[in-house]
Amino acid sequence: MSWSKISDAVIRRLPLYLRVLDESSADQVELISSQELGYRIGVGSALVRKDLAWFGEFGKQGVGYEVDFLRHELRKILNLDQELNIALVGVGSLGVALGRYHLKRFAEDEEFNLRLVALFDNDPRKIGTSVEGVQVYDLTRLTELVPSLNIKMAIITVPAENAQIVAEQLVKSGIKGILNFAPTKIVVPEDVHVSSADLTLEMQRLAYYLPE
Amino acid sequence: MSWSKISDAVIRRLPLYLRVLDESSADQVELISSQELGYRIGVGSALVRKDLAWFGEFGKQGVGYEVDFLRHELRKILNLDQELNIALVGVGSLGVALGRYHLKRFAEDEEFNLRLVALFDNDPRKIGTSVEGVQVYDLTRLTELVPSLNIKMAIITVPAENAQIVAEQLVKSGIKGILNFAPTKIVVPEDVHVSSADLTLEMQRLAYYLPE
Repeated sequence: MSWSKISDAVIRRLPLYLRVLDESSADQVELISSQELGYRIGVGSALVRKDLAWFGEFGKQGVGYEVDFLRHELRKILNLDQELNIALVGVGSLGVALGRYHLKRFAEDEEFNLRLVALFDNDPRKIGTSVEGVQVYDLTRLTELVPSLNIKMAIITVPAENAQIVAEQLVKSGIKGILNFAPTKIVVPEDVHVSSADLTLEMQRLAYYLPE
Repeated sequence: MSWSKISDAVIRRLPLYLRVLDESSADQVELISSQELGYRIGVGSALVRKDLAWFGEFGKQGVGYEVDFLRHELRKILNLDQELNIALVGVGSLGVALGRYHLKRFAEDEEFNLRLVALFDNDPRKIGTSVEGVQVYDLTRLTELVPSLNIKMAIITVPAENAQIVAEQLVKSGIKGILNFAPTKIVVPEDVHVSSADLTLEMQRLAYYLPE
């Protein structure tokens, strides 16, 4: 599902709410208040209620939200009620480290539904090998394998100078969501969403807030 | 300098403008229009003018912005006109890979001014070694070394379960800016800014925008 008028700031908070609900569900908590939900992600209860109201009436006044129900609904809203296959392009040390550090959960948590199913590189020494059980394919096979492996999103960890060309190949293959780790801006059509994990920009932003 | 009422969305765009200005300056471009500046970061020219107007009158109607002047001013606004020392806590494969992938520029670009000066870990096998010429110190020396090495910001790349305790140690040492790569929320006092590089949350956010 997709409600196009809802601001990106709201969408950014949904995975945070979902994480709290996942934890609450694991702890067998049945009900959660907007106060508690807000507190755990660092916002006020009014904002929680407003955010969730965009998508339906999930809570009961004075009772709160049913954890498993809201969790189920948020997973649907975020398209996480289905398996989403992901590819990573650029099997350098960062790509491998990200796989080991962050993506382990993709394999471990049955309900998680984000699956890293393919790695791509242009280095003949890497093609055909595998990382944590996931195979490294030749980058030239992208347009063939994205549809056949039903890949929906991609992570770019190639050097900055190759990021744009890789992004274009991903777009041509039908990818609509890209997480870009390369320290450069990539330009894509409007219907493709890019999230940038650019350490330099983040550090520069944080520097603004440093005390004199 | 710090203007507390300016929204974080504005601040997030400043490093993007700065990057375009860095590139223009390297290409010996002397003047840049708000159209060009906006186009290169993917926003409209009106927003560029509005963003920059928060900080002063930098442009001339019909002429544009003087690249080197605006670049100089943005560096001041972002506190990047001085050297800012950075520490990284958690010398695992991700920490090392991030060092190699992103932080090379810290050492190469004299004007860049963000310097990775210390690594911290609690593994005795890592303490005393170095990565790309940067020494690995014992985590217990944080409160001593942050002031003595004049460290202003930190990057957390420890496992999720250790992130909060590390964040608390950083805060206690006087750190006011943290880039958190651990896939968990860290809670810090209001005067400390945290930027989260959480791949899971980003992928879940991107999933929302996927077509049916």
